[in-house]
Amino acid sequence: MATLGDIGLSAAVNILSALVFLIAFAVLRLQPFNDRVYFPKWYLKGLRSSPTRSGAFVARFVNLDWREYIRFLNWIPDALRMPEPELIEHAGLDSAVYLRIYLLGLKIFVPVTLLAWTILVPVNWTNHTLVKSDVNYSEIDKLSIANIPLASHRFWTHLVMAYAFTFWTCYILRQEYEKVAYMRLHFIASEKRRPDQFTVLVKNVPPDPDESISETIEHFFLVNHPDHYLTHQVICDANKLAKLVKEKKSNQNWLDYYQLKYARNQSQRPMMKTGFLGLCGEKVDAIDHQTAEIERLSKEIAKERERVISDPKSIMPAAFVSFKTRWGAAVCAQTQQSRNPTLWLTEWAAEPRDVYWQNLAIPYVSLSIRRLIIGVAFFFLTFFFMIPIAFVQSLANIEDIEKKAPFLKPIIEISFIKSFIQGVLPGIALKIFLIVLPTILMIMSKFEGFLSISGLERRSASRYYIFNFVNVFLGSIIAGTAFQQLSKFLHQSANEIFKTIGVAIPMKATFFITYIMVDGWAGIAAEILRLQPLIIFHLKNFFLVKTEKDREEAMDPGSLGFNTGEPQIQFYFILGLVYAVVTPLLLPFILVFFGLAYVVFRHQIINVYNQEYESAAAFWPDVHGRIIFAMVISQLLLMGLLSTKNAASSTPFLIALPILTLSFHLYCKGRYEPAFIRYPLQEAMRKDTLERAREPNLNLKAYLQNAYIHPVFKGGDDDDDDNEDEIISKLEETVLVPTKRQSRRNTPVPSKVSGNSSPSLLDVQEK
Amino acid sequence: MATLGDIGLSAAVNILSALVFLIAFAVLRLQPFNDRVYFPKWYLKGLRSSPTRSGAFVARFVNLDWREYIRFLNWIPDALRMPEPELIEHAGLDSAVYLRIYLLGLKIFVPVTLLAWTILVPVNWTNHTLVKSDVNYSEIDKLSIANIPLASHRFWTHLVMAYAFTFWTCYILRQEYEKVAYMRLHFIASEKRRPDQFTVLVKNVPPDPDESISETIEHFFLVNHPDHYLTHQVICDANKLAKLVKEKKSNQNWLDYYQLKYARNQSQRPMMKTGFLGLCGEKVDAIDHQTAEIERLSKEIAKERERVISDPKSIMPAAFVSFKTRWGAAVCAQTQQSRNPTLWLTEWAAEPRDVYWQNLAIPYVSLSIRRLIIGVAFFFLTFFFMIPIAFVQSLANIEDIEKKAPFLKPIIEISFIKSFIQGVLPGIALKIFLIVLPTILMIMSKFEGFLSISGLERRSASRYYIFNFVNVFLGSIIAGTAFQQLSKFLHQSANEIFKTIGVAIPMKATFFITYIMVDGWAGIAAEILRLQPLIIFHLKNFFLVKTEKDREEAMDPGSLGFNTGEPQIQFYFILGLVYAVVTPLLLPFILVFFGLAYVVFRHQIINVYNQEYESAAAFWPDVHGRIIFAMVISQLLLMGLLSTKNAASSTPFLIALPILTLSFHLYCKGRYEPAFIRYPLQEAMRKDTLERAREPNLNLKAYLQNAYIHPVFKGGDDDDDDNEDEIISKLEETVLVPTKRQSRRNTPVPSKVSGNSSPSLLDVQEK
Repeated sequence: MATLGDIGLSAAVNILSALVFLIAFAVLRLQPFNDRVYFPKWYLKGLRSSPTRSGAFVARFVNLDWREYIRFLNWIPDALRMPEPELIEHAGLDSAVYLRIYLLGLKIFVPVTLLAWTILVPVNWTNHTLVKSDVNYSEIDKLSIANIPLASHRFWTHLVMAYAFTFWTCYILRQEYEKVAYMRLHFIASEKRRPDQFTVLVKNVPPDPDESISETIEHFFLVNHPDHYLTHQVICDANKLAKLVKEKKSNQNWLDYYQLKYARNQSQRPMMKTGFLGLCGEKVDAIDHQTAEIERLSKEIAKERERVISDPKSIMPAAFVSFKTRWGAAVCAQTQQSRNPTLWLTEWAAEPRDVYWQNLAIPYVSLSIRRLIIGVAFFFLTFFFMIPIAFVQSLANIEDIEKKAPFLKPIIEISFIKSFIQGVLPGIALKIFLIVLPTILMIMSKFEGFLSISGLERRSASRYYIFNFVNVFLGSIIAGTAFQQLSKFLHQSANEIFKTIGVAIPMKATFFITYIMVDGWAGIAAEILRLQPLIIFHLKNFFLVKTEKDREEAMDPGSLGFNTGEPQIQFYFILGLVYAVVTPLLLPFILVFFGLAYVVFRHQIINVYNQEYESAAAFWPDVHGRIIFAMVISQLLLMGLLSTKNAASSTPFLIALPILTLSFHLYCKGRYEPAFIRYPLQEAMRKDTLERAREPNLNLKAYLQNAYIHPVFKGGDDDDDDNEDEIISKLEETVLVPTKRQSRRNTPVPSKVSGNSSPSLLDVQEK
Repeated sequence: MATLGDIGLSAAVNILSALVFLIAFAVLRLQPFNDRVYFPKWYLKGLRSSPTRSGAFVARFVNLDWREYIRFLNWIPDALRMPEPELIEHAGLDSAVYLRIYLLGLKIFVPVTLLAWTILVPVNWTNHTLVKSDVNYSEIDKLSIANIPLASHRFWTHLVMAYAFTFWTCYILRQEYEKVAYMRLHFIASEKRRPDQFTVLVKNVPPDPDESISETIEHFFLVNHPDHYLTHQVICDANKLAKLVKEKKSNQNWLDYYQLKYARNQSQRPMMKTGFLGLCGEKVDAIDHQTAEIERLSKEIAKERERVISDPKSIMPAAFVSFKTRWGAAVCAQTQQSRNPTLWLTEWAAEPRDVYWQNLAIPYVSLSIRRLIIGVAFFFLTFFFMIPIAFVQSLANIEDIEKKAPFLKPIIEISFIKSFIQGVLPGIALKIFLIVLPTILMIMSKFEGFLSISGLERRSASRYYIFNFVNVFLGSIIAGTAFQQLSKFLHQSANEIFKTIGVAIPMKATFFITYIMVDGWAGIAAEILRLQPLIIFHLKNFFLVKTEKDREEAMDPGSLGFNTGEPQIQFYFILGLVYAVVTPLLLPFILVFFGLAYVVFRHQIINVYNQEYESAAAFWPDVHGRIIFAMVISQLLLMGLLSTKNAASSTPFLIALPILTLSFHLYCKGRYEPAFIRYPLQEAMRKDTLERAREPNLNLKAYLQNAYIHPVFKGGDDDDDDNEDEIISKLEETVLVPTKRQSRRNTPVPSKVSGNSSPSLLDVQEK
């Protein structure tokens, strides 16, 4: 067991490395040639352009102003200075609320730490159980519950503290939920008009032998929402097209690279191999080859575009339906349309940039099967992921390799390679798995058929949290693989399980303290340095960049990464809540994490990350639910621990805690969760009325017409711009094809030319 | 362990008693003076009146036509003859769908029984494990899985059968769910106009300092549903009034009784005591006393009525809001109204007769607390109900009683009383508890705040099912009280639990066979005899009945009793599914139950039961869910059983079964459950359009105006009818009070006199 000295050393190392990262960051960020790495957000917003300082050539790359180095920690107050409303304006509500999770950690754990240190630490410290006993112990354990003798009346203190911590956490959680729900509603009700406020995604449109999908949709909504239906946008299966466009872009990049290379060294035409990864195959002139490839792809893209637009089979049985009022959209999104509840499914449309286009056409039955498959797959991933890794590790067995491939013997016998294979490779296999895990989880979510990027990230975050909980939290406390735990749990009674884990908890405190320092201190400090994007940017800058636009594209601001970031924070919540009563020593370490991470991520959100979507804090119920889960786990484990301490008189009083916590959760769920799922009609009506009064002549149809067009039709390359007009007008024709039904006459058909009073894609192109 | 002979004897006894009940019924139902006991439904529908056969005086009471006695079993084809659509028309959809549960039992278990007897029984029978072993065994066990040797490959048969039964059950369940969902939607969409189609119940109206509740409601809906809002009906707290009316009615009954008594024997004025239950207190002239009481109550009722109508405090913050179209009501019921999701809660209004008026004003927070309290209380009821009963039973200890109350000694020492106290009293305590259990559960549901009688019954049924499962099913399999089981389960691993129960299952088959014969054969036959209502009717008829109307009231048709009946059926489902693979011998007994019960209840529903409400089969998701639960339990127990049989090669293949079953459940939930919760807009719109075309001049407002008036204002006694007009018009004034807001002008205020084109309360009274 680690002593205080060990922890001190570890702390020194980690603090030092964190400081190194921070200082490196402070220096690097001042250099103009790193500007796009550390402030990409401002470039994206168009508020900053490449440094054009007059002066020496050197000054364009290196900052020579010594005063700025003195104030190298200035970024901290800068990051904290921006008020929340401005932050929401600048980086979106998602980011602002995401930061509140760190603040929530501080709000919960600052008072908990103070209380634990003023009451629990003295109560634990003034015992002499460990001194008298023979077991090895360290000073740290003297501060923990392990120092209390069996059947002591002092356990009542821990019981009361468990109640106090629970009530405080619930109080703060409720306050926060209320605040976030308010912020969300306020944000949605804020002045800005957004297409998704008027739009509903309709899935599983039933096929009709006499009508096209577009006609079926129009007729259905003209009949069933006669006063509110405005227009709709069918969804084309443009996945192949998107793939072609991506391929073309990659070729374009290579062409740029070779052209730049040729420009720098005109003596030799650059050559390349056509085979796999450029490693094998025929050698050809690179520039010619890439130009030919691009030409071929351009043709294919044009053909594919034509096909997507004209082929009725490429129209998917789903559409974005827009309404005249927010009220109409709110009604349609919240109600069941058809007698068959698996047809005409409606839900709020995600923001246009948040839509995950590939999944829009999955039928209902397939969805349930996919969910089942992924559920089973995730179960195996969580509990059996060690099996393939152990297999890879067993491959790294020197003797086996020598036996099976004797010709490798001379190489392997070199001592450096031998030690590398034996020492590093097994670890690397695990590390690589953990690095690709979020990607695997994301692919699973995509397969499951979520329709928005935010939804994908939320589901991946849940899965990542469960994986972490089982394999990192439980796995660290009870040594052994998850599968061994599982079989242990199946063969143990519920009581025994909590006892086994509860007893092990105090002993693992030092391990988790070290973990916090590595992952939560040094790791967060490394985050701000952005080493990987820094290197990649400079590589790209050197090899690819010709124009300002290329430089723009070479920036990789990244985004918040909810699917990995949030489970990481949650891990600290569960550590804090579990150890608050057991080993209060751990709490200050967690506080440092929350404080440091808050500052770092606030800086990153303001200066670096690009906002990929805006879900208006739709993730908060998940965050809240996981903290509740952590509370219940901590209470059950405390019960398990106390029941081994012969504290029979106090343990039963703990039973009420999880029940109270869960009913608090139910209360919050009923009280606040609807704000994250539904859209109150009162709000919609108020906003509609206001808008009608302010802009009586608003041409909403023009505003919404092209809001939900597949990105490949929209954000194409420059050379495709001439096609676009044509394509959009063709798509429009598909939408506005004249139909036979009488009911059509009820809605005014807007003339295609008149009053595009709001900025839409068409306007931009007409200019 | 019981032998075949034991079971044969038990079967003979039970079949005999069932036959006695059926013959008694066949004879009694032919007697004219029992007509109202056995055919009350027809009297209620006005299709039958008291027998007025001309002829002998005797013939008015006793049926002398010998031919009818020969055809005494004719009621069975009669009961089966009525086709389902007519049954729905006659007794409502709830009853028709309730009968389908029995049919579902037959559909599932007839093929299962055939398959089990053709395949499983021979496979079990042709072993000799039991013959060779030393343990006692009976012929029955030779038919069961107990006869298969350990680690035999024959267990594969059971595994395949488990899959076959599961798929068959799921197939039938899906078919049935689809059919019932269709029936429900068809029923709702059927021609008949009902007030609840247009009406939404609004709860938690926030108080407004400037406006009355009625005004607040009207303004809110005029603003937020401007095109659809029609009218609303505030809810008065008339609980005290209802109590007074009930009291008056009871006094009226007594008065009738005494008057009849006096009329028969004029020599002596009847006397009564005024104290508790007429057992103590002053002796007074009964007729005078009751007349005075009635007069006093009448005055009080009038005063209370005045208070309820005029006092704004008696108006509860809830209302029934009606819309112009079904579309408008469907929209309002399915959407969230206000930013605060605990205010302006909307849900479909139950049918007027289904509304549980007492619970309409419980605020949101109180509801969550009530739910928590009842949850905890039900937990204790289920697991600790034996404690008070054991206490009562311990009171029946002779020695204790003699010690504490020596003066009772001479009485107790009488051997008859002694044996009664010792032998019967403890059993009676338990029996009484079990009889009042449904009432206790009903009170719990009422306290929990459900708003409709159907909702109350559904919740009580769930609780009763859980209680039965824990205390009857598990309690019979593992001897011991539920509490002992609970502590055992807490100290056992999940694996162990299923093993323990699984092993005990085949041994309990004979017990359950006897149970089925007593409860499911003789019990159901006793149901049709209606002994208790028969006796009470004749008592009332003799003592109270003066007029035809009194005789009408003396009938007690009873109702279906979903809260006790459905859990009983479910118990047979779980028995059948659990024993299908293990002891197929049990299946024919279950088939007899389902067949007999189907005939008996079909007869009762056609001829006896009164329909208290119509929930349009809203209970089906519960029925479906419980059968799924029974399937999963049976699969887990089979796994537990097989794992003790060393059938290691086949057991793991069972793991997929519960997973498949649960995902089937999720699929059904998504596919069919919405039909029981929401109301598709397409249906609503279709119905609205049809109605508008057929009756363009329908005055809907008049139709809905008084649909949702508290029953004490509506179904009053004859002598109150003169008040009613006045009261309703007063209530109406409250509703139609002129308000200040501008928005009011948008909706036409209907003149109070014009066009009551549909039959409403007002019409009836004006005539």
